[in-house]
Amino acid sequence: MIIKSLKNNIPLSQYIDKYKAIIEENLLRLLGPSEITPVTLYQSMHYSLFAGGKRIRSILCIASAEAVGGAIGDVIHIASAIEMIHTYSLIHDDLPSMDNDDLRRGKPTNHKVFGEATAILAGDALLTLAFTTLSDISVLSNIPPEKALHVINEIALSSGHYGMVGGQQIDMESQGKRIDISSLEQMHMKKTGALIRASVRSGGIVGGAAPPRLLALTEYGENIGHAFQIADDILDVEGSIEDVGKTIGKDIAQNKNTYPAMIGLDESKALEKSLIDRAIEALNDFDESADPLRMIAKYIVERKR
Amino acid sequence: MIIKSLKNNIPLSQYIDKYKAIIEENLLRLLGPSEITPVTLYQSMHYSLFAGGKRIRSILCIASAEAVGGAIGDVIHIASAIEMIHTYSLIHDDLPSMDNDDLRRGKPTNHKVFGEATAILAGDALLTLAFTTLSDISVLSNIPPEKALHVINEIALSSGHYGMVGGQQIDMESQGKRIDISSLEQMHMKKTGALIRASVRSGGIVGGAAPPRLLALTEYGENIGHAFQIADDILDVEGSIEDVGKTIGKDIAQNKNTYPAMIGLDESKALEKSLIDRAIEALNDFDESADPLRMIAKYIVERKR
Repeated sequence: MIIKSLKNNIPLSQYIDKYKAIIEENLLRLLGPSEITPVTLYQSMHYSLFAGGKRIRSILCIASAEAVGGAIGDVIHIASAIEMIHTYSLIHDDLPSMDNDDLRRGKPTNHKVFGEATAILAGDALLTLAFTTLSDISVLSNIPPEKALHVINEIALSSGHYGMVGGQQIDMESQGKRIDISSLEQMHMKKTGALIRASVRSGGIVGGAAPPRLLALTEYGENIGHAFQIADDILDVEGSIEDVGKTIGKDIAQNKNTYPAMIGLDESKALEKSLIDRAIEALNDFDESADPLRMIAKYIVERKR
Repeated sequence: MIIKSLKNNIPLSQYIDKYKAIIEENLLRLLGPSEITPVTLYQSMHYSLFAGGKRIRSILCIASAEAVGGAIGDVIHIASAIEMIHTYSLIHDDLPSMDNDDLRRGKPTNHKVFGEATAILAGDALLTLAFTTLSDISVLSNIPPEKALHVINEIALSSGHYGMVGGQQIDMESQGKRIDISSLEQMHMKKTGALIRASVRSGGIVGGAAPPRLLALTEYGENIGHAFQIADDILDVEGSIEDVGKTIGKDIAQNKNTYPAMIGLDESKALEKSLIDRAIEALNDFDESADPLRMIAKYIVERKR
């Protein structure tokens, strides 16, 4: 990872670590009392929520709010809710009837530890808890109720059958089949891109972005969302199991449609780079408050997971 | 079913049929265009959403709004969202790793038709679509944003790990074990009761119920929610497959904790009756606008499913 200084002279890794700690503290609080019945369900939700995620989506939401003059306190609950939705999607994607993954971030997947039924329910509960949290944000963060509703709608739309869930379905259906590059893009736009876009936009909306700025943030979000998935595909080819924390080469073994398989590794890297460039260009009119967003864009393609 | 006339001289069955038609028309509209990619996911959502449910929760929501002077137009989208949540819960409960049911309302269960992966995703998508819909209710029905947020919070809390999902987890964990009657009650209060209570309360909140009336509606909702599950257990013992539309005697075969198994059939029926009486008593201060609620209470224990 390139360590480059931010405005206040902290490197990106410190920025991420600082916010990660705040997000995780908040997630733990939002999860509620650990002794709540049934305990196994709590444990299963907790297990995946704290299984070592980089919290990129949450940090994007916060960085986006900061880029337009908002503060972390305005969006921390939104950022946390997004993390819950992301976590639920990973639990369900890993299930035996889906991608059938045994490892996630170097740890056994949720159903490997808690069994399939509990894993499904933990995913359901995390998705629902996200909306419990989001519908409480006016109370928790003094966000005007209209804005809160706008954000809930944005996040729900990006996560459902028009967005993430739709993308996962396309992914499942296209395994073992050859699809063209535009279908691949559409799949990723839904599966990964939509929630990343919503993370950036929610931060912008609550941070008070005027329409042209929200548009710029949207363009940023769409481009990094697209780049993010290409980076993921490349990692599956080039990463080590220590880096990636999951089974390597699985995409190839499962005959998945990936960018490297479709357009080659070099071409995939070139595409990834041009998307990151476009994301950063979209922020041309932003001052140094947007530096974290600029650096996260670079970080996304250089990260290990 | 006892056919008793309502205020405007229609029997309950006509009241239900009339509102059922309106709810289903609205659900179809909210599901969005059928040609949206991926088509299978749409079909799977549509299949379970229109698999012959009685729409009791939605009708309770509407009847509750009407009981306090509200109108169907205020709550139709809320009622529809509740139906989506109920449907998602049925799809996930029927999965092989959960109750492993092949039949639901006389039709093959979702995963039998579409496969497990699609069934899980259709459930996820319906749950998410409920919140897309609920966050749009201010726009769609002119509900004040604060009230909309209150309703979303109420419904999310009742559906998540504190409510319905938690109840399903307890149910899964207690199979094959003997639990006591108070644990059984707690399980049902979460699994079935919480969403029924939220259906009644949401209608009351949006219908404009003053606090004492909302309290009365809450008591009504809790009592019928409890009675509803006892009626379900009794149906599994006494119903015919034509009546119930699912495999009969499964609770016994799966060694499930049920009221008849625990306190006997006669005692179960007596308990059911006293809960219905208490539900109707809770509405003592309501005029004939609450007649549908009174009659639904009786209907619940006499219904076939």
